This record gives sequence, structure tokens and C-alpha cells, in this order.
Amino acid sequence: MKIVFSQRKLLDSINIVQRAISPRTTLPILEGILIATEKDVVKIVATDLQLGIETFIDAKIIEQGSVVVPSRIFSDIIRRLPEGDIEFTVDSGYKIEMKTFNSVINLQGLDAREYPELERIEEINPIEIEERILKDMINRTIFSVSVDETRPVYTGALFEQEEDNITIACLDGYRLAVRKDKTDMSAQRTEVVIPGKSLDEVSKIIGNTDKKLSIIIGEKHVLFDLGYTRIISRLLEGDFLSYRQIIPQDYSIRVKVDTHLLQSSIERACLIAREGENNLIKFSIKEDKMVITSNSEIGNIFEEVPILLEGNELDIAFNGRYFLDILKAIEDDEICLDFTTNINPCVVRPLDGREDYTYLLLPVRVFI
Amino acid sequence: MKIVFSQRKLLDSINIVQRAISPRTTLPILEGILIATEKDVVKIVATDLQLGIETFIDAKIIEQGSVVVPSRIFSDIIRRLPEGDIEFTVDSGYKIEMKTFNSVINLQGLDAREYPELERIEEINPIEIEERILKDMINRTIFSVSVDETRPVYTGALFEQEEDNITIACLDGYRLAVRKDKTDMSAQRTEVVIPGKSLDEVSKIIGNTDKKLSIIIGEKHVLFDLGYTRIISRLLEGDFLSYRQIIPQDYSIRVKVDTHLLQSSIERACLIAREGENNLIKFSIKEDKMVITSNSEIGNIFEEVPILLEGNELDIAFNGRYFLDILKAIEDDEICLDFTTNINPCVVRPLDGREDYTYLLLPVRVFI
Repeated sequence: MKIVFSQRKLLDSINIVQRAISPRTTLPILEGILIATEKDVVKIVATDLQLGIETFIDAKIIEQGSVVVPSRIFSDIIRRLPEGDIEFTVDSGYKIEMKTFNSVINLQGLDAREYPELERIEEINPIEIEERILKDMINRTIFSVSVDETRPVYTGALFEQEEDNITIACLDGYRLAVRKDKTDMSAQRTEVVIPGKSLDEVSKIIGNTDKKLSIIIGEKHVLFDLGYTRIISRLLEGDFLSYRQIIPQDYSIRVKVDTHLLQSSIERACLIAREGENNLIKFSIKEDKMVITSNSEIGNIFEEVPILLEGNELDIAFNGRYFLDILKAIEDDEICLDFTTNINPCVVRPLDGREDYTYLLLPVRVFI
Repeated sequence: MKIVFSQRKLLDSINIVQRAISPRTTLPILEGILIATEKDVVKIVATDLQLGIETFIDAKIIEQGSVVVPSRIFSDIIRRLPEGDIEFTVDSGYKIEMKTFNSVINLQGLDAREYPELERIEEINPIEIEERILKDMINRTIFSVSVDETRPVYTGALFEQEEDNITIACLDGYRLAVRKDKTDMSAQRTEVVIPGKSLDEVSKIIGNTDKKLSIIIGEKHVLFDLGYTRIISRLLEGDFLSYRQIIPQDYSIRVKVDTHLLQSSIERACLIAREGENNLIKFSIKEDKMVITSNSEIGNIFEEVPILLEGNELDIAFNGRYFLDILKAIEDDEICLDFTTNINPCVVRPLDGREDYTYLLLPVRVFI
């Protein structure tokens, strides 16, 4: 096997596929990256068996072949080589030689036949979406994914498509994050659960551009096809809560508030609250202001945020960190907080009746 | 006690003095920052008893007084308050109240009389030096300070002044870094050892400007007077090696080399070497090139760097990390490496005979 790579292109490809390598794998071959020629292009692949990434690069192929390279040292070396050509040769014993104008590096590779095949998914009924829209939807919901491995389905995000709506919903025991957007019309309804970690890596690989990518849902896998790069993830099995049923449709109290003022007041309150238990902060919603307080052994804080109130006054308590996560995920300058009682969830929605986001947070019950 | 601070000025001052606070102190009062009015300015102080920093800020003093504030939470809160005025009040029980237009924060402070006094040093015979020159001298030597606490004097840097020369020298068991520069003429000779940690903090506080600061050497302390801020450090006791005696004056082999080419070749060699022992890299100095090699269980590397050689060919081995530290501290594009034999140190010097830096590194003895 013999290939002449451009250092820049090879490094870009390795940076992409490396996201699929798990830092703690028990299968040594999975610490490697597969490099294989496919006719006139080179395929670079990595996987942790849950998530697989393959990307294709142009290179000058002198002799066809394939090898698995040790990923960490290989990427460290490629990163440190000067821009320009790298002559990459592999002998029959999988010994790798990399040559530039003043360096020769030898590493031991592994037999590519030992490397697991990525799942093939038939590319039918692709869902097409702009990269920046998908990136945004992921980044604004993924923080609500559960970290509790005992109920694995909730470590994933519910991904739905129906007609021309696309939705991502994430929930753990305390909060729900839902983002909606538009795609092309689709005849069939899709509803799958994608691991949070896979979506997180997808959002890091895709750009902030209006270039479209295709999402193809298979039996047990999902494929994100970016053209030059394909990301294949297993789906999670199990029943996901019908999240629509837990979003209250009515409210008796609506607070309109400036997102940034609310966020900075809660941030300060959290500094005091983090020294106590549960990051507990209290809201006291009054006629024209919301008073936010917290206290712990180190002291106490009292914040006032101007609001517009519809409905009655209310005292309610939350985990301040969770509330901050929601506020940080919102792009609007002003939002609605909808309440019913101090034991019902708070629903955070856009001011103007748009339905592109809904966040829900359970209050903490306290003897106020 | 009542003061109106500007949030911005207070935050800047806290960021400076906080560098003296040790993350693991056994004296609770040293986790605090002293805030005390002194006539019409406010003094902000922190110390770990080794290093003390005090800075002065303008503020509207309504009632004189002093208090020790808990540093971590205090700085976190000040950082998160909006720009503008902070009304800072302390009652007789050291209860602190901070008020802005929409926040009220209460913290418990401590009695300022419990706070240790910083050492007073009589400001005689100041050594005047531009901030950027001192910053540079520190940053380009401090990496050679020893981390071995069993010989404390070498955890410090030797600071010398004689006539119009100023020198900083740091050494551990394997290497020596010396930087020289010019100051005003001085009648007396100064030679003290300043803790590496103190110099490191000094270099972070001073700017990259040509503003001058004064260094005043006391009996057991040194004072860096920046005008608005004063940094006081203990000196280290003990005999520091006469480092001039260990720098070979002669050489039999001189290599002239491009600093950046050498650095990037050694960086790559270190990637392979780090998997083995001692970060061992080997130089084979030949007529017109230096061959740098290293090998470990993961593979091997062979690098060629063009050189100009005076003298005989030589094979010699080094700890590659130590060699890199030296190269990173050098601003010249080309340097001299001077050798005698493969068991004598390598001396790194400027090409043009300048004496502003000298680095020395002991080779590693191997059966080449």
C-alpha cells in the first residue's frame, strides 16, 4: 500500500473521524483508525461500535491497500508534520512508514481485516436539513438529556419528523427541552431515539452553514450523510415518554421577562446557592417584579427583575443551574414563563406565540 | 465602614491580589482578602505569608473601616455584577452588604485585625527596570527552576545586579537558564534568590509595556513596586551554585542551526520518545546536517535538520522535553549549540556573540 497525502487534508479527516474513538475501549483495534483505498479515493474510518464516522479524501494512490493506524500517536504526528506531501507506505507486515522531505517515521499498524464494518443503511427517504439548523436544534436541547444509564432510552434525544415538521426532544427527571423546525414535506412519520453523545458529535462535525445534509433512518441505525463524511449511529431502544402530554396547555400565571436580566440575576443567586444543597433559588413573583433569592451558610442574595405579570402572584423554587441551562439555550431577548401552581412545572416559551421552542422545568418543593 | 466602588476597578484589583492566595491554606483568614480604607484610597491585600500583594484603588469612602472578605465567593460575585456602582457596607459584626440597583448580597466577613501585616521594606536603592524586560527575563528562565522541595534554594531564581547588568539564573539538576539585561548603573552589588512562584506571579501582573517598576531588596524580602500595586515576596535562604563556573567557556564543536526547524523536528521526535523512558532523543551531528532520532515500543523516527558545523562530528543524547523548553524560550531565528564531548553539557547561545542568554543542558549518557 502506498499513498501520497496532503498533510492538511489528512489532518482534517483525522480530526473528524477521531470523534468516534472512545477513550476507554476494551478492543485494541478500536483505538485505531482504518485507512483504506477505495478505487481513486481514500476512506478514513473510526468507530466505537455505537458511533461510526467515515470520511473520504483525495490523495495520490500509488498502490491500493488498507491498514489500521494507532490513532493517538498517528494524529499527534500528522498534526506536527509541516504542510506538504506525506508519503505513506505500508508493508505486508502492516509496518507503516511516513516520509516527508526531512522526516521518516515508522509505526506498527494492524491488519485492516480485523476492523469492524460500519453498518450499511439503504439511502431511502432522506430527511434533508440545513447544517446550521440541525446544529442549533441539537445544541439547544442536548443539555437536557439524562445521564442516568439505568434508563438508557433517556440518554438519547427523541427525533421526530411528521409532514414538514422536525422536532428534537430531550428530557431527564426534572426538565424537558423541545425544539421544532421545518423541513421538506414527508409522506411517512419518523420517531426514533438517537444517543445524546452521537448527536453531540454530529453537531461538532457539521458547520454553521446553510449547506444541506441528509438524515436516513434505518432499522436500528441512523445515518447523517454530509457528502464527504458519513456519521452512523446506533439508535436507542425503549419507550420514550409522550412528552407532549407533560407540557401543560394552560397556565394561570404568565410572566414576560428580559432573558438577559433574568439570566444574570440567576447566575449571581447560583453563586450563593451552590454552597448549599440542590442549587436552590426562590422566585417570588409580584405585580411588576420578580424577586429572586437564595441563601446558604456563606450568605444570602436578593435580586429584583422587572416583569410584566398576567395572573396572580406566586412563590416557587427551582434548581438554579437547571434554570440557567434553559436561559442559555434561548436566543430571544424576551421570553414568557408560564406557571399554574408552585408544584406544577414552569414552561418557558417564545413571547410571540411561535412554537419553535418549549422548555419545561419542575419546581423544587420547599416549605416557603 | 461604607464605600462606593466602581465594579470594574474593584474587579481589576481583586484579580491582581488574588494571585497571592494559596488554594490550600491552613489559616482560614488567609482565604480572605483585606479591604481597608487608608485616608482617601482603599487598600486591597492578599497574602499566603510567602508572597503578599497590595493594590490601591480610588473609591468613594463614606465611612472609614476595614474587613476581610471571603475571597472566592467575593470575586465570583463581583465578576458577575453589572458595571456601575457597588455600595459596600460593613457593620460592627463584620457583616458585609453589597448593593447595586437590583441586587443585595450579604456575606459574613472577618475582623481585619486578625489579618497579618505585610512586611514593610525601606525603599532605598531601588533597581529600576521596564516591565516588559523583567517579564521577558522571568518567562525565559523560570521553566528551569527546580521542583524539588528538598533543596528549597533551587526552587528559586538567582537575581543579580552588578554595575549596569541585571541577571536572572535558574537551575535544576539537569539544566541552567541565564538571561541578562541592562539597568541603570548601581554602586552596590545585589545577589538574592527569589521564589520561582513569586516571580511567576510578578510576570503575570506586570504588563508588556516600557513603564518602569522598582525592585527593592530588603533583609529577607524583595518588593516589586509598580506604583499602584506592590508585590512583596520572601527571599529564599541558602547557597546558590556559582553558576558561571559550570558554563564551559570553550567548545570544540559548534553547530549553527535554524531554531524553528530544530524545534519542530524535536517536537516530532518527542512524540515517539514520550512513550519510552526519559524522553530520550539522540543527535547525530554530521558534516552538514544533524540527524535526530528516537524510538520506543510504538515505533521510531528519523529527522534531518540542516546545520553549519565547526569541529568534529558527534553523537549525543538528551531529554527531548528539556531541549524543547530551551528552544521555546529563545526569540532568535538562528542559534549556536556548543559541544565538547558527549558527556559534557550542550550550551545554547546567540549566534552573534551577544550575551543576553545562555542555556545549558546536560546530556543523557547512553551506550550509543
